[in-house]
Amino acid sequence: YRWFLIRCLDTASAASVEPSCKWDSDWDKRANDKAKATRNIILIRHGQYNLAGSGDKERYLTELGKEQAIRTGIRLKELGLAKLTTHFVKSTMTRAQQTGDLIYKQLENDEIPVEDSDLIREGAPVEPEPPIQSWNPDPKTFFLDGARIETAFRHFIHRANPEQEFDSTEVIVCHGNVIRYFVCRALQLPPEAWLRLSLRHGSITWLSVRPNGRVSIKCLGDSGHLPADKLTF
Amino acid sequence: YRWFLIRCLDTASAASVEPSCKWDSDWDKRANDKAKATRNIILIRHGQYNLAGSGDKERYLTELGKEQAIRTGIRLKELGLAKLTTHFVKSTMTRAQQTGDLIYKQLENDEIPVEDSDLIREGAPVEPEPPIQSWNPDPKTFFLDGARIETAFRHFIHRANPEQEFDSTEVIVCHGNVIRYFVCRALQLPPEAWLRLSLRHGSITWLSVRPNGRVSIKCLGDSGHLPADKLTF
Repeated sequence: YRWFLIRCLDTASAASVEPSCKWDSDWDKRANDKAKATRNIILIRHGQYNLAGSGDKERYLTELGKEQAIRTGIRLKELGLAKLTTHFVKSTMTRAQQTGDLIYKQLENDEIPVEDSDLIREGAPVEPEPPIQSWNPDPKTFFLDGARIETAFRHFIHRANPEQEFDSTEVIVCHGNVIRYFVCRALQLPPEAWLRLSLRHGSITWLSVRPNGRVSIKCLGDSGHLPADKLTF
Repeated sequence: YRWFLIRCLDTASAASVEPSCKWDSDWDKRANDKAKATRNIILIRHGQYNLAGSGDKERYLTELGKEQAIRTGIRLKELGLAKLTTHFVKSTMTRAQQTGDLIYKQLENDEIPVEDSDLIREGAPVEPEPPIQSWNPDPKTFFLDGARIETAFRHFIHRANPEQEFDSTEVIVCHGNVIRYFVCRALQLPPEAWLRLSLRHGSITWLSVRPNGRVSIKCLGDSGHLPADKLTF
């Protein structure tokens, strides 16, 4: 890996170097599918929850976490997304289920199909670079969670199916590590960089996947819809 | 560059590969300086402006652009940053000057020192990967702007000086391309990826640089403080 290390350090004179990583336009293996529409993928982190809880069921939303979720739902409605949302996915963990239900209610559109998914439960997607001392799951955890979260990425994040005629909005309510990994993978950035990103509770992260497979991020961790005294990490 | 191309495609099975790019903890050449404080760097994109203008002076803020700037200033005040801001920098382009002045006024703290900078004027930091057809500056533009914007990065984005005792907040009002390039460089992501990020007018992007040189992003293009009908790209 010696050459690559040199290339990394070279970013210091980025203005004059070769692109380090070519964009793979067939990253989702759908380049020949003739997609017509754009998929907007709205990734929501759950609200603040009871950190003292042991086990998932006790890790329910705090009162502040519920308020964050409600306000996030109101923001999505204000953005006009209630009519455009074609799919609504929730992680099966308690805090994501509660957050998702509160958001869904605010959208006031019972026709949006809902899916619960175990694939997007919180986990350890890949060893972060640089590592941190305070968070150090064992190799087995990365081994199991990594493949599962990558499976989730391939399942949920891709360009439109060819039969999709109109632009769509998918809302996915899940977890910080999952969202950060999805963002790195979707933008074709090194996945190990995921821990350099941080996301507030109830924040909105918006990916846009064009018919030609190009991906851009419209915002990461947008929490401006929450009053300053309701912000938590 | 063959090996690297293979590595890029390998992200498809990210869970089991070596880190692609080691974090350079001496990226700002200040690793031995014994910094004590954290620098919060708030990057603000200017408001909507008169696209029909020829030349910088005619590219002034629209009425909506002014409102965006005022609301962004109010948000920074709400976040408690008016008291914490130690430095306020504006690009010398008309739209950034106007935006910066409107924000500064909202902070209601005349003791914050102000700096105007030519280094952070809009430009073409580095050829984007993937390229786009609709934006294609000539090589000379990249050659000139690239080194200048990299100079700006090294000047403004770094860990605290050793004499800095308390955490600080720097507000930098500038431009989309400059902010996107700064984010890629600060997070040690490939700089050519900058065009995969997008930022709304008046949006807030927050970098945090710790004493040990670690950098994280708290939000990218946060515009939730703007009503939905005031959002523009």
